[in-house]
Amino acid sequence: MKDFTWLNPTMVIFGEGKVPQIADRLAAMGAKSVLLVYGGKSIFKNGVYTQVTEALTKKGIAFPELGGVKSNPTIDKVREGVARVKAVMVDAIVPIGGGSVFDTAKAIAAGAFYDGDVWELFEGKASELKRALPLFGVLTASATSSEVNNISVISNPEKSLKISFNSPFIYPRVSIIDPTMQFSLPEAQTVNGGIDVIVHAMERIFVGDTGTELMDELGYALIRSMIKIIPELRKDPRNYAARAQYAWAASLAHNGSLSCGRGEKGDFSSHKLGHSLSLLFNVPHGASLSVMTPAWAQYLYRDHPAPFARFADAVFGVEAEDEESTALEGIKLLEGFFRSLGAPTTLRELKIGEADIERLAQNAAQVAPFGTLKSLEAEDIIEIYKLAY
Amino acid sequence: MKDFTWLNPTMVIFGEGKVPQIADRLAAMGAKSVLLVYGGKSIFKNGVYTQVTEALTKKGIAFPELGGVKSNPTIDKVREGVARVKAVMVDAIVPIGGGSVFDTAKAIAAGAFYDGDVWELFEGKASELKRALPLFGVLTASATSSEVNNISVISNPEKSLKISFNSPFIYPRVSIIDPTMQFSLPEAQTVNGGIDVIVHAMERIFVGDTGTELMDELGYALIRSMIKIIPELRKDPRNYAARAQYAWAASLAHNGSLSCGRGEKGDFSSHKLGHSLSLLFNVPHGASLSVMTPAWAQYLYRDHPAPFARFADAVFGVEAEDEESTALEGIKLLEGFFRSLGAPTTLRELKIGEADIERLAQNAAQVAPFGTLKSLEAEDIIEIYKLAY
Repeated sequence: MKDFTWLNPTMVIFGEGKVPQIADRLAAMGAKSVLLVYGGKSIFKNGVYTQVTEALTKKGIAFPELGGVKSNPTIDKVREGVARVKAVMVDAIVPIGGGSVFDTAKAIAAGAFYDGDVWELFEGKASELKRALPLFGVLTASATSSEVNNISVISNPEKSLKISFNSPFIYPRVSIIDPTMQFSLPEAQTVNGGIDVIVHAMERIFVGDTGTELMDELGYALIRSMIKIIPELRKDPRNYAARAQYAWAASLAHNGSLSCGRGEKGDFSSHKLGHSLSLLFNVPHGASLSVMTPAWAQYLYRDHPAPFARFADAVFGVEAEDEESTALEGIKLLEGFFRSLGAPTTLRELKIGEADIERLAQNAAQVAPFGTLKSLEAEDIIEIYKLAY
Repeated sequence: MKDFTWLNPTMVIFGEGKVPQIADRLAAMGAKSVLLVYGGKSIFKNGVYTQVTEALTKKGIAFPELGGVKSNPTIDKVREGVARVKAVMVDAIVPIGGGSVFDTAKAIAAGAFYDGDVWELFEGKASELKRALPLFGVLTASATSSEVNNISVISNPEKSLKISFNSPFIYPRVSIIDPTMQFSLPEAQTVNGGIDVIVHAMERIFVGDTGTELMDELGYALIRSMIKIIPELRKDPRNYAARAQYAWAASLAHNGSLSCGRGEKGDFSSHKLGHSLSLLFNVPHGASLSVMTPAWAQYLYRDHPAPFARFADAVFGVEAEDEESTALEGIKLLEGFFRSLGAPTTLRELKIGEADIERLAQNAAQVAPFGTLKSLEAEDIIEIYKLAY
């Protein structure tokens, strides 16, 4: 175990019917006016917009609104929100939505008290933050753990970058998770989010030998659970037990708890390789991972068979004759599981051509080297995209 | 999954050499004077007393002291501490020790602002608390999770009671865990603490079907890890990776995280049955559990074979012909594991006679009915003690 400091100050209120409590919590901190941040129509359809705004109205809390956050959210929407709160300050930011909405809200919350352009926070200035507006969120799609962590991932199309910043000031103070709000999610989103969760847990395991078998065991436990739960939700999207466990597993996978003692917080290569797919071809986040994670694993397992073999054994019960073939069998089973969910596992399925590989690799190499199990350089990156083709 | 609210505000600073940071954290909150609370000689021997007091002195923080906390800590020591801080107020309480010291410190921290006798907090008045002194602790023996939870367990010999109270105000603000401070623990304490950790994780699993397979998986993962780690530490008490994982598993087992979604937070029957052993015969906490947990399980498994069979499969890989024999095999393996550690598994080994069983049962029945998987009445309790004989 490497040294670590653990603190996660977010309060999670979890269960059916909890959404209106957001207003109680805001009233308790004395909020008079909050900025609602949300995406498209779904929060009007599933009733969560009504629940939140009625509860806020009862408590006499005003709520200017910023809608239209898209998946793979962009810096222009963040800038719009920052300009808004700088013009007329609010007491809190209230994201209502999934990871994209939370990530946007976090950047607005931080940008509210930052003098320069908010994009600078993503380029290394986050450590200069002294405060941020408090965040009180309502989660309507589980996947990224944004509701319980201090990370914001935003795209900047002008710069062809999708990058993140983190700050202790952008942990949500309260996040409400009502699993029934996720009953109506499209199946593809449940699948993509589930893959994201599995990969979040995996990325913490593949960091080399850090004497953290305990943490590995907890990660495997979470992955095994997700492998059961996602197919259950494809059969019945309104299965409460499955929906609730999916939601909580998603929160746990990337709230920092699985990183304790690992030194490096994880090997986020799959995410970084996937970000370029999202940025250049607008591939959904989960789909970018179902393609890039197996390719990344195939590129690395021969030089690092031990962790991939342990993964294969712990998650799929593989017992092949040697470490290397156990490792490969596990990677194949993971890829097969993704395919069984209808998720893409090759660039071809995403209609990305062989000719695009170089552009992808150049984009990803902007933030190279990255990776913990192996530090990936430009020449590694292009090979992994080729494997993914 | 049942509804839940999750918030754990304790900051853990984990790793070798971190002890002096306690003074930095106290200085950052502006503390000028703190009450040190500790047990016996071990903190002088292992150097932690020197590390803490030198660091406090450098920061100009005064430190009146309250030593002599014993295992199975009693209310008289708490009253002594409360009287002391009521006479001359301090800015924080600083426990240096294991669970007993933390539990004592928490009760003092709460008692400092409570007008009546501090024992009343244990008898139902904790909900009236409005505040407590902040706690900044240094852990020297992992087992109870007291360093990361809001519970204080204290004995009252006059009333023959060992009971707990909890309050959101008694979460330690900071807990420092330096695993090397535990290198010199007596083997019996490592074993007893490890059993406590395993039973804490078990107690959360046996609460009936709550649609929380995810949480069960996480609990099994923790138990499997402990079953590997404890024997490693018996071989080499200075194995850093094992000592560190033991410490972190101990913190996770009872910090509330494994209870999320379970409705009832757990079935604490083993602990309650064990408390009477500690109270009447001064049995170490872990030893009380290695005796009472298998007996409790044997009393219940026939009526509730499913969770015990799943436990047997997940923890020990048992695949017997039917659920009931799988369940029993798992219980036997657990008992055998405890025995392999040199821990007692019968009352006889503790030199408790058959004639004492009624007194034990009467003592435990004072807080009956208790238990979630089955609500235990006086007649169940006596049967379980007989099985333990």
